[in-house]
Amino acid sequence: MTQLASSSITPVYKPSRAWNHRTPDLLEKTMTQIQDYVNSRREEWLEELKELLRIASVSTDEARKNEVTRCAELVSERMRQAGLDAAVYPTGGHPAVYGERLGAPGKPTLLVYGHYDVQPPDPLDLWRYDPFEPTVEGEYLVARGATDDKGQFYSLLKGVEASIRTRKEVPVNVKMLIEGEEEIGSPHLGPFIRKERERLACDMVVIADSSQFAKDVPAITYGLKGLVYLELVVRGPKKDLHSGSFGGAVANPANVLTRMIAACQGPFGRVAIPGFYDDVRLIEPWEREEFAKLPFDEEEFRQAVGAPKLFGEEGYTTLERKWARPTLDVNGFISGFTGEGAKTVLPSVASAKFSMRLVADQDPEKIAELTRQFLLDIAPDTVEVEILDHHGAKPVLVPRDGKGVQEAVRAYAKGFGKEPVFIREGGSIPVVNTFQEELGARSLLLGLGLPDDDAHAPNEKFRIEDYYRGMVMMGELLGELGK
Amino acid sequence: MTQLASSSITPVYKPSRAWNHRTPDLLEKTMTQIQDYVNSRREEWLEELKELLRIASVSTDEARKNEVTRCAELVSERMRQAGLDAAVYPTGGHPAVYGERLGAPGKPTLLVYGHYDVQPPDPLDLWRYDPFEPTVEGEYLVARGATDDKGQFYSLLKGVEASIRTRKEVPVNVKMLIEGEEEIGSPHLGPFIRKERERLACDMVVIADSSQFAKDVPAITYGLKGLVYLELVVRGPKKDLHSGSFGGAVANPANVLTRMIAACQGPFGRVAIPGFYDDVRLIEPWEREEFAKLPFDEEEFRQAVGAPKLFGEEGYTTLERKWARPTLDVNGFISGFTGEGAKTVLPSVASAKFSMRLVADQDPEKIAELTRQFLLDIAPDTVEVEILDHHGAKPVLVPRDGKGVQEAVRAYAKGFGKEPVFIREGGSIPVVNTFQEELGARSLLLGLGLPDDDAHAPNEKFRIEDYYRGMVMMGELLGELGK
Repeated sequence: MTQLASSSITPVYKPSRAWNHRTPDLLEKTMTQIQDYVNSRREEWLEELKELLRIASVSTDEARKNEVTRCAELVSERMRQAGLDAAVYPTGGHPAVYGERLGAPGKPTLLVYGHYDVQPPDPLDLWRYDPFEPTVEGEYLVARGATDDKGQFYSLLKGVEASIRTRKEVPVNVKMLIEGEEEIGSPHLGPFIRKERERLACDMVVIADSSQFAKDVPAITYGLKGLVYLELVVRGPKKDLHSGSFGGAVANPANVLTRMIAACQGPFGRVAIPGFYDDVRLIEPWEREEFAKLPFDEEEFRQAVGAPKLFGEEGYTTLERKWARPTLDVNGFISGFTGEGAKTVLPSVASAKFSMRLVADQDPEKIAELTRQFLLDIAPDTVEVEILDHHGAKPVLVPRDGKGVQEAVRAYAKGFGKEPVFIREGGSIPVVNTFQEELGARSLLLGLGLPDDDAHAPNEKFRIEDYYRGMVMMGELLGELGK
Repeated sequence: MTQLASSSITPVYKPSRAWNHRTPDLLEKTMTQIQDYVNSRREEWLEELKELLRIASVSTDEARKNEVTRCAELVSERMRQAGLDAAVYPTGGHPAVYGERLGAPGKPTLLVYGHYDVQPPDPLDLWRYDPFEPTVEGEYLVARGATDDKGQFYSLLKGVEASIRTRKEVPVNVKMLIEGEEEIGSPHLGPFIRKERERLACDMVVIADSSQFAKDVPAITYGLKGLVYLELVVRGPKKDLHSGSFGGAVANPANVLTRMIAACQGPFGRVAIPGFYDDVRLIEPWEREEFAKLPFDEEEFRQAVGAPKLFGEEGYTTLERKWARPTLDVNGFISGFTGEGAKTVLPSVASAKFSMRLVADQDPEKIAELTRQFLLDIAPDTVEVEILDHHGAKPVLVPRDGKGVQEAVRAYAKGFGKEPVFIREGGSIPVVNTFQEELGARSLLLGLGLPDDDAHAPNEKFRIEDYYRGMVMMGELLGELGK
């Protein structure tokens, strides 16, 4: 979920009485073998997840390299334990883990994708617990990586295991690819998939690296935003200067940077880079209708986020802006003196990381180039400007009536007790494009997290009940696809 | 020199052959008793300065509080050793040191002002030596505080000592006030001066906390810029959010901050805050003429600063902009993720420290209020905005023909072998206003530093020869004033 994430903040949706008050009798009648098996192993499988979360597999942190590798080895071991032939594969960066169970000739082949790497835990002082000592708090498990993505992919793995143990055979061919560089933009995954194209060949991909629409409102995500992540570095004098003595004589890189980043922004959250909106696919009328039906309260959302007021492009609802309109956000900036008190410095350098979220049919490379060109055009010649390219992703729109979608709807009904809604997301999963391009396979986005799981933030968590529900859903999905 | 500092970067001025080739004979003829005395104690008095520089008296750093106090005690001890009645005085913040020698009834009273506190040494990794282990490098002494202001005020103190030892009496009454909070805006100095108004009563103040115009071009500074130092804090969502999921739904404080700071800036370094230029006193024709005569090479200056190009208001020379035109500079900013790599965060808070340098007759309180009002006017209601006031100073213009100025010119001639030029400075010394307002006393700004001393920056230094020349100048100044 570096790129894909939650769509709203609970509590927005109020579960219906019918679901909450389902009788034990009814539950018993619909209880499947898979459910039985999962229920009998709840404690044991929660401990296994905790073991995985204790490993600080922060892919962006060079100092954690060994922990990332150790995590890959544990995932591989757990795949073998589940009944897959599995191994750790070098990629040129952090390793990938791949496992398979191919006992169903003539049946479809499903590739499960996830990632075992996690975001940095900063800022550390805001965590209630050690981010790498998973802690049960009410109905949640709190840890870095709990929802993004260890808890989610491990739920699918245990679903595969439950299917193998209860059915004595796999209803479809199952492949599983868990990478270690998702949070840094998966730089080696594309080449790995290209190289292992034959091994990874499949009919569809399943990814659990996103969210339900709300608590007890499971969802299938059919749209993802794309991403362009850049960094602007402005350099002026060769060293920091006294702002009294040199102010007015040389351009201040921090002054220049604010003007350049401001120039990229139009009013009300519009992006002011020329050509930015040229290829944007407009939201279709049926989507506006569907989104409007979803249980989403803007005022409750605002309160949950804690912002004084919601904000964004005029003429669109909050869900429309979040899911289907492109944006530009500064992700961080730094320059000069930022400590306690006052220092009258004219900084020699200033930098800002910023990213643009794209919608179909915007092309990340084209947008990156437009942005680069615009920044170079407006850069004054009194400073030196460098533009770094961190990573990108194409936007995605999956047909809602494609292969496997109806099977997933039925599997959700068994795992979660109700059918999923269809939503889009503001995040990105670049690998979805790679699977489409390299393997010709479409992805089913079956998020198990919740919108307020705080992926990427302190006190990240995962709802324990959904960890088990995901296992059942996955086990049932294999059965549905094998029919 | 938090606020007052260098006016140019050497090597800009080429000393005339006449001065460089002065014969030993001529030097001998003009050698005074003061010079003899200083020359006989060069080694010893350099060691004393080093001892002072070893104390890390960083006033903005709470963790250094004890070192600040220890430094005050050493200064007090050194004043007593020089022949002054001296003691450390509590101020409510870091203590001040005051000493006096009042043996000249009917003669003028001179108050020497300086500060024993220093700037933080950050960034530490750019220092060639431990910043608090003074190191001789060629003709310079390198240490935090070497030029700003320990080396300079200590030179004046040793000049007073030389005068006392050689003359057996003081030609004028001497008072000396060395404070410990100059680098944090002297918050307790004003109240202290008001409280001790009688004790501090004087006819003029001497301050050595600035620079010569260039190496071997001593200068008397007749103009200082004023200062308004503010911090803008923009708060949005209550915690950091995922920029994919929430971008487009809530205002990003980092985006908003760049737009607000950019809105304060006009083209070519102009300040765009309405009313900002209303009270600006224009540069007078005679000043433009004087500045134009000074040995200043814009291209050499640019190369020394290392900026791709010089920059600033159109229609003014670089010296005019540096000395006599108001500016706005961002001193630092921070928000969101600033570490290695990429993190797709929508930050909950962004902040920028920025300051405006003012010229006569701009009023810091009025400018601060204009700025505050402007920022609040343009702040969107989708964020919360806070504006912190760090410190301010009024601009200063000292009459060049006032009391003591001609005596200082003669003292310079003896200490430095030539008459000083008259310059203005981009920095500020708020205390100059306080002395004028509370004691009715004008300040003589007799800077001993050099423009490339790197006050406030790594590898701060002070030219050792000027340390001794300042002593002679000070000793002679007392004699001149006592005539």
